[in-house]
Amino acid sequence: MAKKMAILPLLFIFSVLASSSRALVQDFCVADLKSSDTPSGFPCKKAAFVTEKDFVYSGLGVAGNTSNIIKAAVTPAFTAQFPGVNGLGISLARLDLAIGGVIPFHTHPAGSEILVVIEGTICAGFISSANTVYFKTLNKGDIMVFPQGLLHFQINSGKSNALAFVSFSSPNPGLQILDFALFGNELPTDIVAKTTFLDIAQIKKLKGVLGGSG
Amino acid sequence: MAKKMAILPLLFIFSVLASSSRALVQDFCVADLKSSDTPSGFPCKKAAFVTEKDFVYSGLGVAGNTSNIIKAAVTPAFTAQFPGVNGLGISLARLDLAIGGVIPFHTHPAGSEILVVIEGTICAGFISSANTVYFKTLNKGDIMVFPQGLLHFQINSGKSNALAFVSFSSPNPGLQILDFALFGNELPTDIVAKTTFLDIAQIKKLKGVLGGSG
Amino acid sequence: MAKKMAILPLLFIFSVLASSSRALVQDFCVADLKSSDTPSGFPCKKAAFVTEKDFVYSGLGVAGNTSNIIKAAVTPAFTAQFPGVNGLGISLARLDLAIGGVIPFHTHPAGSEILVVIEGTICAGFISSANTVYFKTLNKGDIMVFPQGLLHFQINSGKSNALAFVSFSSPNPGLQILDFALFGNELPTDIVAKTTFLDIAQIKKLKGVLGGSG
Amino acid sequence: MAKKMAILPLLFIFSVLASSSRALVQDFCVADLKSSDTPSGFPCKKAAFVTEKDFVYSGLGVAGNTSNIIKAAVTPAFTAQFPGVNGLGISLARLDLAIGGVIPFHTHPAGSEILVVIEGTICAGFISSANTVYFKTLNKGDIMVFPQGLLHFQINSGKSNALAFVSFSSPNPGLQILDFALFGNELPTDIVAKTTFLDIAQIKKLKGVLGGSG
Amino acid sequence: MAKKMAILPLLFIFSVLASSSRALVQDFCVADLKSSDTPSGFPCKKAAFVTEKDFVYSGLGVAGNTSNIIKAAVTPAFTAQFPGVNGLGISLARLDLAIGGVIPFHTHPAGSEILVVIEGTICAGFISSANTVYFKTLNKGDIMVFPQGLLHFQINSGKSNALAFVSFSSPNPGLQILDFALFGNELPTDIVAKTTFLDIAQIKKLKGVLGGSG
Amino acid sequence: MAKKMAILPLLFIFSVLASSSRALVQDFCVADLKSSDTPSGFPCKKAAFVTEKDFVYSGLGVAGNTSNIIKAAVTPAFTAQFPGVNGLGISLARLDLAIGGVIPFHTHPAGSEILVVIEGTICAGFISSANTVYFKTLNKGDIMVFPQGLLHFQINSGKSNALAFVSFSSPNPGLQILDFALFGNELPTDIVAKTTFLDIAQIKKLKGVLGGSG
Repeated sequence: MAKKMAILPLLFIFSVLASSSRALVQDFCVADLKSSDTPSGFPCKKAAFVTEKDFVYSGLGVAGNTSNIIKAAVTPAFTAQFPGVNGLGISLARLDLAIGGVIPFHTHPAGSEILVVIEGTICAGFISSANTVYFKTLNKGDIMVFPQGLLHFQINSGKSNALAFVSFSSPNPGLQILDFALFGNELPTDIVAKTTFLDIAQIKKLKGVLGGSG
Repeated sequence: MAKKMAILPLLFIFSVLASSSRALVQDFCVADLKSSDTPSGFPCKKAAFVTEKDFVYSGLGVAGNTSNIIKAAVTPAFTAQFPGVNGLGISLARLDLAIGGVIPFHTHPAGSEILVVIEGTICAGFISSANTVYFKTLNKGDIMVFPQGLLHFQINSGKSNALAFVSFSSPNPGLQILDFALFGNELPTDIVAKTTFLDIAQIKKLKGVLGGSG
Repeated sequence: MAKKMAILPLLFIFSVLASSSRALVQDFCVADLKSSDTPSGFPCKKAAFVTEKDFVYSGLGVAGNTSNIIKAAVTPAFTAQFPGVNGLGISLARLDLAIGGVIPFHTHPAGSEILVVIEGTICAGFISSANTVYFKTLNKGDIMVFPQGLLHFQINSGKSNALAFVSFSSPNPGLQILDFALFGNELPTDIVAKTTFLDIAQIKKLKGVLGGSG
Repeated sequence: MAKKMAILPLLFIFSVLASSSRALVQDFCVADLKSSDTPSGFPCKKAAFVTEKDFVYSGLGVAGNTSNIIKAAVTPAFTAQFPGVNGLGISLARLDLAIGGVIPFHTHPAGSEILVVIEGTICAGFISSANTVYFKTLNKGDIMVFPQGLLHFQINSGKSNALAFVSFSSPNPGLQILDFALFGNELPTDIVAKTTFLDIAQIKKLKGVLGGSG
Repeated sequence: MAKKMAILPLLFIFSVLASSSRALVQDFCVADLKSSDTPSGFPCKKAAFVTEKDFVYSGLGVAGNTSNIIKAAVTPAFTAQFPGVNGLGISLARLDLAIGGVIPFHTHPAGSEILVVIEGTICAGFISSANTVYFKTLNKGDIMVFPQGLLHFQINSGKSNALAFVSFSSPNPGLQILDFALFGNELPTDIVAKTTFLDIAQIKKLKGVLGGSG
Repeated sequence: MAKKMAILPLLFIFSVLASSSRALVQDFCVADLKSSDTPSGFPCKKAAFVTEKDFVYSGLGVAGNTSNIIKAAVTPAFTAQFPGVNGLGISLARLDLAIGGVIPFHTHPAGSEILVVIEGTICAGFISSANTVYFKTLNKGDIMVFPQGLLHFQINSGKSNALAFVSFSSPNPGLQILDFALFGNELPTDIVAKTTFLDIAQIKKLKGVLGGSG
């Protein structure tokens, strides 16, 4: 009986704590993608509408389509695909590399990356500001870290398909693919030539392949 | 006379500085709680409507109600109660512990804490990731720091009421009370058992006290 | 001929750029674990001694030993095991859960986490500051995010072994296992009782299992 | 022919990468100044409406008006004037100092500053928390750094006009001019006197010059 | 019997978790003040030598000496006095103001501040970058926040002693006292005059009081 | 006479404040380049040995040598050259572009950049993660911002020498020159080919020019 009376005040105090806490919770901030982004990420979906589904994403369970000439696919789970990571400083992507597949030179302007090889053999590397090359062949279970903003690549160097997951130190690390940046837009050929020392013919050839104009 | 003429240009230059400055001031960002939160905090109330009242809060001047079985109360001045701290990396709360009062094990996921004892005697402690226990009896005027995210507690270990103020390295440090998390919601009893090694009877007993179901 | 002469100055300018860059590079900061840690991480190994091996770790390629009563193992690649992640805001760990295996309730005080299921079926969940429970059964390829500092768990809910990789938004996220914190050290039984509301008998039983004293 | 067929899949893969990337880009966040500010800066202008003009500002190309008694002018390119810097951690301003011109003691609460002398001779200095004075005469091409939040000044100490550019480690460093803060608002004279030890007559004189009341 | 056997493996797994965790713990970083500071704070004392005493400080339990002409005293618990706060983003100080006591205009270049009045009545205020004055009389239990880097003051406006605690969003917020910066060092009088518009006589008078030369 | 007596206590209080402040000052952290770097920058030179010279750098006062085939020079004032910027979140560099000069495509992995044109005409641009090109011709006094980590370039598009200063949101922004990364090191030609789609002949030609092997 005494215990029963005790229960109410305890509930009371915990309720007070909980309700004040509830009002100001920002353990997480599931992105409301319809609002405007801010420098720290998207505004938060109202807590009342958040469910466990906001923290789970199934889009990486299926292999990306590698029927293309790089024989590879990147499937991201960044804020746009997986709003639950907004504001949490982390995201993930899936890499599929068919035999001979390559993820060409690229950078992530806003995040460092760790790759873990799930299947196959991958030759991966990056180049530092001091222009040193670090590359190594990775087998199943090996992991490699790529520091933020540096040019890096992954090549399937084995005889079977390769699968890897890559995580990033940002919910929105960005992705700048070198070839795409140089040859896949309307940057004029003469500017590309002046700023890369590549031959005009080489530039035009790759602009042709990658759909660039100018 | 010369002086009077000098005044106008001086006013002019300072006005220019002030108006440009005024337009872009973000010394502070009083929370507009009606807007959606973002990962960095709430959008700012328009500067024109900000007054000195936004930077002052009187809600901690009254003792919390300790008529409950923990014989203690936490009164927060986080962003939700005190919008002036939004974006400023700091907040405060008041702890009242009646004789025998206890703030049970809890964490603040998003901030470190400093406690200062104003009245009475408090036994306080925390446990590190390395599983070392650090606890000590604190007297009036003593301060103790609790690193971010670690389990900690406060117990009135004296013979009179105790009062303390706690400050946090975040305007919104969060608050996860262990008992409340384990026994005060709908997390199924078998999951609690599997993930804590507690006996089913113990879990059911505390779910009864704390209002948990499942 | 003119071209050959041109080469030398070009080398010259690039060398200048490279050498100045080389002197001040801090693209990365491989931990010198013999030095004292700082709030931002360990001092850096000298760049001249850094090789590709510093950025690759093979310790997650082997399953952890799950012959224990939780039937599970966590194998971390944090700064201590993988010094290449120091200062880069990211790390990784491997989770092995045998049939019936459980990673009991724990927190990471300094990082958010993403889990990707590689094999098997895992029931995973976390509890928010507002005391809401978010849990879900995850299948192969599913990912789930756990916000920083919140209590969470993983249970093998399938009929075969489960394997997952978890990445963190910190090179050193910390790990506080609830049972271990409450029952695996010298925190006196009466303090545990007061701060958790658990029965003395329950506490003593688990202290027995987990090696706690006091 | 084979090549032509290859092109389409390559375009396909790059398009996929590009479109996913496009959806979640936050390389930059040009301020939408009509929205409410947040602690991390203004919400972003929609990417579709961003052009190269958002990243270029011509307002610093013209000398500020130095026909005032400080014989100096500060022309800022902070977020309010140059929305392209929002969220990027940097901004710029132009300093013009006529002969005898002075930028009086001021602080930037939210950013460190580097000054580069373009024309003329400037005596610049700051005072540390330890109350040490650091000042030096700077000639054309010299640069000086002023740590965040400290009182500093610049004086044209040469016999011709001086021009400098100053950059800040924040898109919105703030600007608190000492004289303006003390004498250019409605802070009551007796409070100024108590908190500065200045004589009442001195305070009233400068309030007169700077337009302060109270 | 089975249970007894189970205990050992459980101990085993937890030991593994604990020892790996132990090796890489950085929940806290008690300052080793004999080492050189870094931009993120001091290197850490070795964990093996850390005790509960490192997290507790008793230096604020005694009133500061207010027998001076400002009739006030500031007693800090920053990193230098309380090494346990190093790296934790928070610190504390005690303010004693005798009747008529004043903490003159000052800034903290590296932290925001919250003040809580424990005894007496305090008139406190700050001035924004937009040159708006925010000041208010605070009674026992009232709290006020002062944004980072802005000029602020506290005056005992009651008829008895006043006591307050102030917390900061940095373990080392810095302290620049305006009068001390202007009149308490060797900054030449003519530079002070040019950069403040104060009269030479006023400057010399206060240099006399505050021990400045030049 | 009374005044003289008052002076001593005032000195006393200010001395106390000053000496405590002095002990814990970290307004700045001039790099001790002989110590090991950390993720937050270099350890600090002892305050007692810091002079005004540590905050001033004259190395940007002289034009860089543009007698090379890019007809351009970059002269940095990063931590290695100007230790005073360590920990302050900002740095500067000087760009000299002779007629026809070009700063080829490059990135700064760790900082955003603002360029201000001092002399001449510069065509500058960058490419976003979404592969949009933003470029514009800048005249004297124009400024342009380049977001962190993105490929960008500068070309002297006028008929006279051009001079610009560029500031960065980091004391150590890094510098990765695209051509140098691809063709100026020992990265094997076949890897360059696979990861860039450039022709082998083109790669070998530029490796020849830039000194690359492999």
